[in-house]
Amino acid sequence: MLKPILALAAFAALPAIAQTAAPSPADPAPADWKAIPDNEMLVMTLQGGHQVFIRLAPRYAPAHVANIRKLAEAHWWDGTSVYRVQDNYVTQWGGGDDKTTLPPGVIENPPAEYEWPGFDAVRSFAFAKPDSYAAKTGLSADGWPLANYGATSALAHCYSMVGVARDLAPSTGSGAELYTVIGHAPRPLDRNIAIVGRIVEGMQWLSSLPRGTAQLGVYAKDQTPTPILSVRLASQLPADERPHFQYRATDNPRFAAWIKARENRDGAFFTVPMGGVDLCNALPAVRRAP
Amino acid sequence: MLKPILALAAFAALPAIAQTAAPSPADPAPADWKAIPDNEMLVMTLQGGHQVFIRLAPRYAPAHVANIRKLAEAHWWDGTSVYRVQDNYVTQWGGGDDKTTLPPGVIENPPAEYEWPGFDAVRSFAFAKPDSYAAKTGLSADGWPLANYGATSALAHCYSMVGVARDLAPSTGSGAELYTVIGHAPRPLDRNIAIVGRIVEGMQWLSSLPRGTAQLGVYAKDQTPTPILSVRLASQLPADERPHFQYRATDNPRFAAWIKARENRDGAFFTVPMGGVDLCNALPAVRRAP
Repeated sequence: MLKPILALAAFAALPAIAQTAAPSPADPAPADWKAIPDNEMLVMTLQGGHQVFIRLAPRYAPAHVANIRKLAEAHWWDGTSVYRVQDNYVTQWGGGDDKTTLPPGVIENPPAEYEWPGFDAVRSFAFAKPDSYAAKTGLSADGWPLANYGATSALAHCYSMVGVARDLAPSTGSGAELYTVIGHAPRPLDRNIAIVGRIVEGMQWLSSLPRGTAQLGVYAKDQTPTPILSVRLASQLPADERPHFQYRATDNPRFAAWIKARENRDGAFFTVPMGGVDLCNALPAVRRAP
Repeated sequence: MLKPILALAAFAALPAIAQTAAPSPADPAPADWKAIPDNEMLVMTLQGGHQVFIRLAPRYAPAHVANIRKLAEAHWWDGTSVYRVQDNYVTQWGGGDDKTTLPPGVIENPPAEYEWPGFDAVRSFAFAKPDSYAAKTGLSADGWPLANYGATSALAHCYSMVGVARDLAPSTGSGAELYTVIGHAPRPLDRNIAIVGRIVEGMQWLSSLPRGTAQLGVYAKDQTPTPILSVRLASQLPADERPHFQYRATDNPRFAAWIKARENRDGAFFTVPMGGVDLCNALPAVRRAP
């Protein structure tokens, strides 16, 4: 009979085996791990003490991230809730009906930071197969998933990416209401919404919540939204409470080898290697600083 | 301020608006809804009475589905559990450590029903953009997502598809342990595992379970697997307890128009229509018979 550890799962164990057994060209060098700055890490604490850690992307959405920093500094999210969980789509939290007055300095309708000229993906690798949405895809040197649409590029709506909920255009959303992707990547949202970051730890506290039963996964009156106790930048926390995360740099031959390995999964489990992988199945690792 | 119903969600409301307002070329005709046979519907009842409805795909994995029917007829799954939930990957249930002796007639190691010659997708539409894994993708006339890899085709590992957990090859898995995809489509599993169906209702009871904290999302000793009260084919149930589901046929111009609409989301929310959609974001509707 099948053992539950091995059944289906054997392939997932391979990277761990590879790392603990023989060294691989896909293993990161110690210097490939780079610190995420304290003011680029948002820490959300939910009822029960569960924590969600969001790496921010100020380079790609500066005005929205500036808003988010102001909201955190004003403790604005404290006492709001997670009020929408739509299966195979998004979990959404923040203001909504809980709280409607923004703190001073927050721009209600920032510029539409949805796409920008050029494509700053690293050149040390290119995906072997095409993307179903973009002209090409890649990763920034510091690990962000990028989709290029010809003259412009955008962050891609992969699992665990965080975006800014908005009303109909020309609304862009202030950042007071955020969401994360909890299902198959809804890439048609690329270029239609501002992405501001990625959840790098604690994703399960948002992906495993009860689904909302009202329209579009909003919690119905008989459902209890999950209270948000606090949201802080790591830089606001006392030094001994700050989390320390590192991203894996992608601009090196070791990461290019890792992509090749993702494209050609083998080992004892895979009967047929695919010869390709899509962007959202190739997000670089983020870890706690050792 | 944003209203939570509209924020981000407006686009998702558009199809409903389109259906209740003006008729669209993408609306199904009454005859496009076809009954799913009672012996192709598996009903799993979890503790608490939550039910999960799995449409089986006997045409694509006949030996595995024959096993699954025998297991249901023997009430074999009753008293087993959901014992693995790996975030952004799979929820897995069935035998495992709970139960290791198969009922008579169940083949422990069926043929590897992973891929087959040809490509029986309907020809009334073709996806506008390429796939990141397969040579081409499409849908069978009765709604199954198909990936063609040149000479052979396979069912695609989209969200909600159900596969047969297996050990290392040449094991193919008996069907006693099944899983469903709860995250971004793990398409590298295509052609490496037998897919036997798709969850058409009740997905949230498997996608929102607590994640397992042991290796690969298996439940740790201090976690409680979710008990499975029963698994039955609809054809085993008394006539008045049988669920009646219908799939939307894809071999008609109305469905081709629906795909075009998925590829070019517009309405008031989408600033930029994508001009394409991937297979796993274009699964046909299944509904309860009205």
